[in-house]
Amino acid sequence: MAKIKKQPRPKAVTPKGFRDYFGEEVTQRSEMLRAIAGVYHHYGFEALESAAVETVEALGKFLPDVERPNAGVFAWQEVDENDPDSNKGDWMALRYDLTAPLARVYAQHRNDLPSPYRRYAMGPVWRNEKPGPGRYRQFYQCDADTVGTASMAADAEICMMLSDTLETVGIPRGDYLVRVNNRKVMNGVLEVMGLGDDQLARDNVLRTIDKFDKVGEAGVRELLTKGRLDASGAYIDGVGLSADQAEPVIAFLTSKADTAAKTFENLRAAVGASKVGAEGIGELEQIGDLMAAGGYGADRIEIDPSIVRGLGYYTGPVYEAELTFEIFDDKGRKRQFGSVAGGGRYDDLVKRFTGQEVPATGMSIGVDRLLAALREKGRLSATPTGPVVVTVMDKARMADYQAMVAELRNAGIRAEVYLGNPKNFGNQLKYADKRNSPIAVIEGGDEKENGVIQIKDLILGAKIAESATLEEWKERPSQFEVPRGELVAKVREILESQG
Amino acid sequence: MAKIKKQPRPKAVTPKGFRDYFGEEVTQRSEMLRAIAGVYHHYGFEALESAAVETVEALGKFLPDVERPNAGVFAWQEVDENDPDSNKGDWMALRYDLTAPLARVYAQHRNDLPSPYRRYAMGPVWRNEKPGPGRYRQFYQCDADTVGTASMAADAEICMMLSDTLETVGIPRGDYLVRVNNRKVMNGVLEVMGLGDDQLARDNVLRTIDKFDKVGEAGVRELLTKGRLDASGAYIDGVGLSADQAEPVIAFLTSKADTAAKTFENLRAAVGASKVGAEGIGELEQIGDLMAAGGYGADRIEIDPSIVRGLGYYTGPVYEAELTFEIFDDKGRKRQFGSVAGGGRYDDLVKRFTGQEVPATGMSIGVDRLLAALREKGRLSATPTGPVVVTVMDKARMADYQAMVAELRNAGIRAEVYLGNPKNFGNQLKYADKRNSPIAVIEGGDEKENGVIQIKDLILGAKIAESATLEEWKERPSQFEVPRGELVAKVREILESQG
Repeated sequence: MAKIKKQPRPKAVTPKGFRDYFGEEVTQRSEMLRAIAGVYHHYGFEALESAAVETVEALGKFLPDVERPNAGVFAWQEVDENDPDSNKGDWMALRYDLTAPLARVYAQHRNDLPSPYRRYAMGPVWRNEKPGPGRYRQFYQCDADTVGTASMAADAEICMMLSDTLETVGIPRGDYLVRVNNRKVMNGVLEVMGLGDDQLARDNVLRTIDKFDKVGEAGVRELLTKGRLDASGAYIDGVGLSADQAEPVIAFLTSKADTAAKTFENLRAAVGASKVGAEGIGELEQIGDLMAAGGYGADRIEIDPSIVRGLGYYTGPVYEAELTFEIFDDKGRKRQFGSVAGGGRYDDLVKRFTGQEVPATGMSIGVDRLLAALREKGRLSATPTGPVVVTVMDKARMADYQAMVAELRNAGIRAEVYLGNPKNFGNQLKYADKRNSPIAVIEGGDEKENGVIQIKDLILGAKIAESATLEEWKERPSQFEVPRGELVAKVREILESQG
Repeated sequence: MAKIKKQPRPKAVTPKGFRDYFGEEVTQRSEMLRAIAGVYHHYGFEALESAAVETVEALGKFLPDVERPNAGVFAWQEVDENDPDSNKGDWMALRYDLTAPLARVYAQHRNDLPSPYRRYAMGPVWRNEKPGPGRYRQFYQCDADTVGTASMAADAEICMMLSDTLETVGIPRGDYLVRVNNRKVMNGVLEVMGLGDDQLARDNVLRTIDKFDKVGEAGVRELLTKGRLDASGAYIDGVGLSADQAEPVIAFLTSKADTAAKTFENLRAAVGASKVGAEGIGELEQIGDLMAAGGYGADRIEIDPSIVRGLGYYTGPVYEAELTFEIFDDKGRKRQFGSVAGGGRYDDLVKRFTGQEVPATGMSIGVDRLLAALREKGRLSATPTGPVVVTVMDKARMADYQAMVAELRNAGIRAEVYLGNPKNFGNQLKYADKRNSPIAVIEGGDEKENGVIQIKDLILGAKIAESATLEEWKERPSQFEVPRGELVAKVREILESQG
């Protein structure tokens, strides 16, 4: 046993890279998760909640490095009960996403689960990475996946569900777009470029495609060949292709046309004789037909060849939801809000465990980004209304104040009694202010004697204080004396007038 | 860097002591948490969500033992970025409850938070303990605490809120009781017993008080003195007090009377001249008055001297919610369901961080126990209804089926299309069965040609199959042919008939 040292006082700090969420930040997120879960459920998806902890072995992706056991994930070694000093305990880790646990659960329970298995999962994941501004080491993910089917109907369904979800949480049609592409089409393009198995060149091309939104056709052409000067004056090296080699990429990226039929025609030209490319286009056509059958038009979901969604991983359709409205960034520049969700088809989900290939497709919604978007658009209140505060004029009469609070609550009105030291009445009003209280209730000795109470409209009061010179405010009282029996009625009346 | 070994296939197993939750287990819990949060919010409490991870230093309670860093908690050492090989990184751990993070948050943000600070928190906590049947290493807690006030109104409020919460989640009045005691009264009893500072004897007495429910007055008398034979025939050593010394404990435990006034009179007799005892009784009287003012009678909240709530920790009022209805245990014996929530007043919450004593009171609800209780009482459905399943008779017409599903969903009906291999229709019905689907929709080639669809009432179908001999069932068809245009109307009609 190590010696226990006398320690100095611990520091009260949030661990680096983590954060605390207060009040509305918590409830707004949980309301959003609930709304999303409602849509997923409506589509036949079932909830799954696995533990935060998995064995490192099951998580995969990395092996425990004895000197740096927690590179990328938070990991620790269990103590083997039978041999505590052996260093033979299992390595455990916090999940870094919700897909790796899905793989483990599906492999473990595949005989009991319906097949195909539609599941959703929401919760925190952890990354042992260097934190940065707005980048935390714990954050929420919100996933929906369909495991065990190669049908394009599964992919189409997820795109439609994504569209419904965005509208349900408060992003109106027109303010978002779900964009669909297919990795096979891109592979077809790479094939006709004659890159063969040159993985580096293939990855570089995909990375360049991903920049199409920013640098446009001419920019991509430069980046694929000799390189280009970016806006800051820095020279960006090119991929080093010939102009001929670059052409199919350009044809692919510019294939989006007014109609889906025309887009598909352009894509067919871009992939030429590539078999995998043709297969990918066929899949996109199927998805297009299913969208149309479901009534989802190009105002919600469209085929867009510039969607890449990272490297490797995906094997077929990929999709991404973008918010299309403009916001102002930190420097006051207009920009589009950008991506809030995405996903695609992947095939080796459970192969690691069972050796069998199981096709799957799924998406992840960036809940915190979506919340930020709704706040930007003013669709989530920044300073919500607090509770009615019943102030305390006489500590000995706490039971009277308690009775008022109970009356208000029983009438469905959020209310609390002041629980601090009641000596300084100013402090009670400051407290009510900090709580964003709409109303304060006051019952001093005189009021008690006369069977009345004072009800203070704090919102109107603040307005009057702000605009003391305006006649229209001056004449409106913000404090009302009413009989004790009219507490609930008057509070309700004021709350309604506040809107 | 350690060498990366070629590994065998990973095992797909839930880590020992953890578990996966599926479907309704997840949604029922999240609905319960939402309902509880609603009551807490109504009382003026604000949500707080801290990260799962805290520094071991801030969590307190234990110091990192280099050989067994994770005894009791799951802990790991961070790599110091500036000196990766130094072994100087901070020790981090998963929170073991929601109170330790509250202490850290309050100490850190006390100047910005309202004072008193009412907060609620809900989420998983982790314990690195040997798992047992029904005992997991990750479980939910659901807490509400008021920090920064010594007022008994805070304790009374939490008891009333606990009562409201139980009724809101579906435990009717009469099926539960919130019991309140005060640690100071117990301390008064210990004082008049003349135990002085003998902590061991004091703890033993408290433990014995905790057994009053089980062994009754005579049993407690034996346990406090010479010991007793328990039901299994084993001899339980006594605390070794004299009969005279034991008397105040008995007086205390039997003080509960028909009226609160009489109970307080009995308690006063039990604590004799003890000052702290009298203080405790005064506090209980205040709580009683506040309950009465709020309209909470003895059918919801009562003073009960036998409530102990563990050792040490609490400094004043303690409270516990018990479900009073009877259930049958594994062995078919009747027993009371028991405690589902509890808490009390504690005073050294933030002292570790700031040196200042801050009074606080709060409770924790055992969400999983409460869910189990509702299931026992049949108030949560065990096998909920699944989605309507649109079957696939012709893979090439997936868009038709997709259109049906979209129609049903737009009408507010949970529905999905079968996404597996459609070749074997029996498999589709088996799938629908596994999904607890109430209805299957079928549109083969003939139906398509005739503009009709088949709608199968799977619940009625199952009833008919079960009771094939009953005439009344035989005559009722469970499959209906309707025009394609009547899909939504007919599905709705059948769902309504299923109730």
